[in-house]
Amino acid sequence: MYGFESCGTGEIDQAAQAADLAFQQYRNMDAKTIGSFLNTIASEIEALGDQLLEVCDSETALGQARLIGERGRTCGQLRAFADLVIKGEWVQASIDTAIPDRTPVPKPDLRRMMIGIGPVVVFGASNFPFAFSTLGGDTASALAAGNPVIVKGHPAHPATSELFAHAIDRAIEKCAVPNGVFSLLQGQGNELGTGLVKHPLVQAVGFTGSERGGRALMDIAAARSQPIPVYAEMGSINPLFVGPRTLQAQAESIAAGLSGSVCMGTGQFCTSPGIVVSVASEIFETTLKTKLSEAPRGYLLNPQIAASLQAGLENLNNHPQLEWLNRAEFEAGSMTPPNAVFKTSGKDFLADKTLSEEVFGPVTLYVVCENAAQIMEIAENLDGNLTASVHADEDMELAAKLFKVLEQKVGRVIYNAYPTGVEVCPSQQHGGPYPASSISAATSVGAGAIVRFARFVAYQGAPDKLLPDALKNENPLGIYRLLNGALSRDSI
Amino acid sequence: MYGFESCGTGEIDQAAQAADLAFQQYRNMDAKTIGSFLNTIASEIEALGDQLLEVCDSETALGQARLIGERGRTCGQLRAFADLVIKGEWVQASIDTAIPDRTPVPKPDLRRMMIGIGPVVVFGASNFPFAFSTLGGDTASALAAGNPVIVKGHPAHPATSELFAHAIDRAIEKCAVPNGVFSLLQGQGNELGTGLVKHPLVQAVGFTGSERGGRALMDIAAARSQPIPVYAEMGSINPLFVGPRTLQAQAESIAAGLSGSVCMGTGQFCTSPGIVVSVASEIFETTLKTKLSEAPRGYLLNPQIAASLQAGLENLNNHPQLEWLNRAEFEAGSMTPPNAVFKTSGKDFLADKTLSEEVFGPVTLYVVCENAAQIMEIAENLDGNLTASVHADEDMELAAKLFKVLEQKVGRVIYNAYPTGVEVCPSQQHGGPYPASSISAATSVGAGAIVRFARFVAYQGAPDKLLPDALKNENPLGIYRLLNGALSRDSI
Repeated sequence: MYGFESCGTGEIDQAAQAADLAFQQYRNMDAKTIGSFLNTIASEIEALGDQLLEVCDSETALGQARLIGERGRTCGQLRAFADLVIKGEWVQASIDTAIPDRTPVPKPDLRRMMIGIGPVVVFGASNFPFAFSTLGGDTASALAAGNPVIVKGHPAHPATSELFAHAIDRAIEKCAVPNGVFSLLQGQGNELGTGLVKHPLVQAVGFTGSERGGRALMDIAAARSQPIPVYAEMGSINPLFVGPRTLQAQAESIAAGLSGSVCMGTGQFCTSPGIVVSVASEIFETTLKTKLSEAPRGYLLNPQIAASLQAGLENLNNHPQLEWLNRAEFEAGSMTPPNAVFKTSGKDFLADKTLSEEVFGPVTLYVVCENAAQIMEIAENLDGNLTASVHADEDMELAAKLFKVLEQKVGRVIYNAYPTGVEVCPSQQHGGPYPASSISAATSVGAGAIVRFARFVAYQGAPDKLLPDALKNENPLGIYRLLNGALSRDSI
Repeated sequence: MYGFESCGTGEIDQAAQAADLAFQQYRNMDAKTIGSFLNTIASEIEALGDQLLEVCDSETALGQARLIGERGRTCGQLRAFADLVIKGEWVQASIDTAIPDRTPVPKPDLRRMMIGIGPVVVFGASNFPFAFSTLGGDTASALAAGNPVIVKGHPAHPATSELFAHAIDRAIEKCAVPNGVFSLLQGQGNELGTGLVKHPLVQAVGFTGSERGGRALMDIAAARSQPIPVYAEMGSINPLFVGPRTLQAQAESIAAGLSGSVCMGTGQFCTSPGIVVSVASEIFETTLKTKLSEAPRGYLLNPQIAASLQAGLENLNNHPQLEWLNRAEFEAGSMTPPNAVFKTSGKDFLADKTLSEEVFGPVTLYVVCENAAQIMEIAENLDGNLTASVHADEDMELAAKLFKVLEQKVGRVIYNAYPTGVEVCPSQQHGGPYPASSISAATSVGAGAIVRFARFVAYQGAPDKLLPDALKNENPLGIYRLLNGALSRDSI
């Protein structure tokens, strides 16, 4: 393994000052330069070749196949943000033209668009060392919106983070982007992260991790003399709801699909399905138990996660209203946990809020309800989640009712599928009501992620030459704009 | 005057429970019903006739002419939100169609749109008893997004608030909208507002008022077990920057325009210009002083504002680096303050942060800089503001530099005009970096205000019949949608 010095107050201030200085240059670069910068970062990541995969595998044990896929996703999202920026419509340009002879007062010319906000701090996540870490989605979207980024590297994969920092350094040089647009600070403990969130020049925070960690950052940011937004994507149990008739009809296939989703990435995804809510079915129960027991054990990311899962499984095992259907050993020190399924009743689940807490790892809880009404009751009492899945081809009335309730509880309602696998596209919503996310309106995946690091500014009565291209009369970017309230590509 | 009982914990919980219950019905009403409800509220406000103007004038001393104008604006913005909701594009619908044969994994069908969030608490503002109070912009935008609203009436105009409550009650009845969709709670002191922001069923807060008041609500909301967003529009000094050559050329007209803007509404607008930054000009100084002294004194809204302005003027008067150019008496107990202009140097202004604090009332500070460079230095050191105005027809190089700095400091950059008068239209941005606003990306005026009270939800693989109209294949609403990343009105 590698040794890294922890960064201190000096490095925090240096990175923030450099970022603030770079912002004044970077924010005014044209969209093609910023787009080309993002594309070059992607190419430079690819140019790291096998070394990146080997170093990351040695730090995370995620394996080549998974890491190749995640690298593809990481480069893909950088390129998608490049396209978005070059296209230019993400700024939501809007123009209301003047009516000088309006009575009783003239109507002024007003034009509005989104612009970047300044230095953004991104916390690397351990479970996606590529896609949600140093050069992951938060960094890509913040850079795309015209902001410098300071990454607080995750201590579980420092060498991987350093390789990414080299890649972006090369892109900075090739594209003649100001140096301070990116810094990587590494360190153990909480002081580094806390110091970054407190720094007066920092304007927003991106975080993926635990509810406890995310809430701590939210509290620090809210207590600043200038409070700033923290976009934290936190815990989630991603319930799967199966209609009673659908369970009878598809017990084996749903059990198999769920088992695959639970085991994926050794359960270390924010979208891992932590509970399945349905009625009793012996076939479903047996199949699920068998599939999970037969599935090969995966590797956990780091000893902290292993210790926490060990404690979590013990808690569940000791819970008087829970039955561990496929009880298996998870020895202290082991990094390969069993794929576990527990069982409880709908009534007991409703009575104990702690059963709605995420256990990070390949663990799911089969909640056996008495009937469809109790399934609905569980949906209605759900806390905020990233996703909820509904399997109800044979229960369409229940499906309609579940959709109406679940859309209020989660960011993404899934039909006939499983929550793991988060497609990167404009219609993705990866963020739900608290505690799934700190700011439920925002998404951390997909094109919509860019607006987290931007705000609107309006210009009143400004001459064309003082306006940004997106708002100029001639519409030089050829983008759709809201023109007196209606979308249009017209010039004025 | 009228007497009103203060509401307590019981009423808070009752209103929140009623709102939450109403939400489940109201959120599912079709856009035409919600639009018609908003239009009916506007008609019912108009149907209150002269009584509304008389009652409000007796409570606020704002006068008939101003109140007629403000009523027009209030009804206008209700109708604008009705149009927006009926048109249906505000939900930002986005559809990515499935690619079942994509390798290595199939692409799912994903569709995303904005939906309402639940009960919203709105704090009535004293300075706009119609447009930013009981049925003002916050209430209109929250209702438009499908949310119930609980208004904490401003204690300075309780009878006006009651009349508005009657108007919306009649609209609720006429449109068969659930009762709990609107409640008005009145009371003195902080307990009522605090209790509302703390109530677990409340999902967001709209507030217009002082920085101290707004920050207190932000802190309460951030400390909840489920933190919620507070959209607070707070203090602002709305600086006016005048280029040196432009000041020489237009000293008298700019002094006259500024004087009119300072006196408007007795300076009790959030966009009142509190400082003017330029170089020395005797003509400008004399004209401004004369115009402000000659302008008739206006009435203040309430004794609290009068007392606070009295203290503010005394502080400015006692400040060693400030000169009160048109010193005049403002006797204790008087409700008609002098229209005041103070003078200081650019250097002294930069040296004392307290001079950037808002003094609510018809007061402005002429900051005399040595040169254009010092004007820029003041712009660069500006805190967050709602607006900044630039007069620089003869100083276009300075204008370009000011625009690049000011767009980072304010929500609206104004050219060749004055900040008072906030046009209600889609391109308006009424909200700037902290402390002007709590959430700088948001606007409290214009069509964009609706998204404050909504969040995105995505549906994956859902059958058409389970989708909201905005996302159905046939595009029954005929709206623009992002279809595989490009705006389109096509059906699928």
